[in-house]
Amino acid sequence: MRFKDNGAERDIRALWFEDGELVMMDQRLLPRDVIFIRYNDHKEVADAIRDMVTRGAPSIGAAAAYGMALAALNGADLAEAATVIKAARPTANDLFYAVDHMIGRISAGDDPLKSADSYVSAIVDNCMAIGMHGAPLIKDGYTVMTHCNAGALATVDVGTALAPIRVAWSEGRRFKVLASETRPRLQGLQLTAWELIHEGIDHAVIVDGASGHFMRRGVDMVIVGADRIVANGDFANKVGTYEKAVIAKELGIPFYVAAPVSTFDFDTASGDDIIIEERDSEEITRIGGEDVAPVGVQVLNPAFDVTPFRYVTAYITEKGILTAKDIDAMRSE
Amino acid sequence: MRFKDNGAERDIRALWFEDGELVMMDQRLLPRDVIFIRYNDHKEVADAIRDMVTRGAPSIGAAAAYGMALAALNGADLAEAATVIKAARPTANDLFYAVDHMIGRISAGDDPLKSADSYVSAIVDNCMAIGMHGAPLIKDGYTVMTHCNAGALATVDVGTALAPIRVAWSEGRRFKVLASETRPRLQGLQLTAWELIHEGIDHAVIVDGASGHFMRRGVDMVIVGADRIVANGDFANKVGTYEKAVIAKELGIPFYVAAPVSTFDFDTASGDDIIIEERDSEEITRIGGEDVAPVGVQVLNPAFDVTPFRYVTAYITEKGILTAKDIDAMRSE
Repeated sequence: MRFKDNGAERDIRALWFEDGELVMMDQRLLPRDVIFIRYNDHKEVADAIRDMVTRGAPSIGAAAAYGMALAALNGADLAEAATVIKAARPTANDLFYAVDHMIGRISAGDDPLKSADSYVSAIVDNCMAIGMHGAPLIKDGYTVMTHCNAGALATVDVGTALAPIRVAWSEGRRFKVLASETRPRLQGLQLTAWELIHEGIDHAVIVDGASGHFMRRGVDMVIVGADRIVANGDFANKVGTYEKAVIAKELGIPFYVAAPVSTFDFDTASGDDIIIEERDSEEITRIGGEDVAPVGVQVLNPAFDVTPFRYVTAYITEKGILTAKDIDAMRSE
Repeated sequence: MRFKDNGAERDIRALWFEDGELVMMDQRLLPRDVIFIRYNDHKEVADAIRDMVTRGAPSIGAAAAYGMALAALNGADLAEAATVIKAARPTANDLFYAVDHMIGRISAGDDPLKSADSYVSAIVDNCMAIGMHGAPLIKDGYTVMTHCNAGALATVDVGTALAPIRVAWSEGRRFKVLASETRPRLQGLQLTAWELIHEGIDHAVIVDGASGHFMRRGVDMVIVGADRIVANGDFANKVGTYEKAVIAKELGIPFYVAAPVSTFDFDTASGDDIIIEERDSEEITRIGGEDVAPVGVQVLNPAFDVTPFRYVTAYITEKGILTAKDIDAMRSE
């Protein structure tokens, strides 16, 4: 991702390995401050994952892979290191997968650092492939709507929903991105807008409730990420996604979901089977450390919603643009 | 409206006249503090309107009417008082209407205070009639969704969208109200929830983007207010309304708009002719006095959206529940 640092322009990742150390952007300080922290011990990496220095499942997996590489390079007990790193976040599948993958590679005699590098490269390569497949959908003069942050910060580099946007812009097409702010945690306002600003991509942030208003006035396509895509094609993503999908269909606006094939979960039959995480009510009632709600307020705070497949124009993956018959074929395999 | 004050329960209005003074709840301090301020001079009332001690077009009109009554009682120059009060807020139609109405009544020899009382009573009577007409729509066990604040705070008492809810609850039916928080100014979280808490009505606040998620899981009706209803039946209301209307239609959920007949503007042909107020970007980028957005962010902040008439099940007014043929008849008159 492009990062403008006091006038200089750099091409950086959310995290990378350099001079024997893992370097991670401290995403807790975004969007106001951009600080990089260096790690040379796997226990510090585990602490950083727990403290959310990095976030987004792919970026967490990448940090875990480099954490395991550090453990191997430092001669630490690998089984113990795996336990420490896996304990950092309780529900992050990519975290567990990355640690097990690294144990397998190191046990097989592969170089630890090269193994971590190739694990992370695969993530970024997939994002870039998503970008290449999706970019032709974005034409000059378009208004493209997105939601939450499916960007480079969450996927080490390039992003998923932001990948076609980055590639189309780099190819010289000019368009505008509308990013909904994404309450309660404001990932659209604080992360997606930050990425777009540093790329120099024309954008505007809107409140979530204004999405329909702008779609009615002229949005050419919607593109979002996905947390999980299940066997019948339904998908789960940040709450607020379903609304945009319904309105897009009502208005005839194409609605795309950008995600790597690893997001597909064919063991779950239908979106109705996805359990939605309910998060702390204080995400809504406290803003900037201050309680803004009346005493006695009741709150419901689901983190995700489920969008039925019939609202999805197509999935943009590293293997190409997939519609219903492609997903049927994948399911049969 | 019901107000629980340190264990005691009172029935209050957003403002009222008592012992020669206008008493107004200071709505700037809601939802954390409930303070009443007393006014005996029309200039102070004008200042209070400007400073948003009271808000909502009907409540502003009521304050203006009592301000004119105070001017008359104090022997002030009425033309001068009218100018001072009208200057308090630049675009509030009810404010101008109330001042002119009071000038007319006082010029005709009517008692100033009785004239103001009857002006304000008419507002509250209309709200109560909306409540009586709308309440039968709300059944035991329902989940009722609303947006923004169309409550007693804005209309002196009872409210518009909240009127059927208050009446149905007072008649003993038990249901749950889902109030969307209504970014950027959080009127759902801070005002609607405050009113529901004091009435003892079961409720939950949700982020705006979660409206579709909850509608899909089982909302029985949506009821919102309106800022303007135009000749073809389209209406303008707080941004976020249009989305709920589209999703309600998609899911077969009745969608009602509660508003007094004075909200109808037959001089405007279509919703497309309504000019949408664009508000300051800092409503989105600053929260609790703190800048939460990245440097260089672009923002679009429309205050309202327009919902086409085809998404409206019916209008709930003081004259009854109006559908397309009723509005056709009103237009002909």
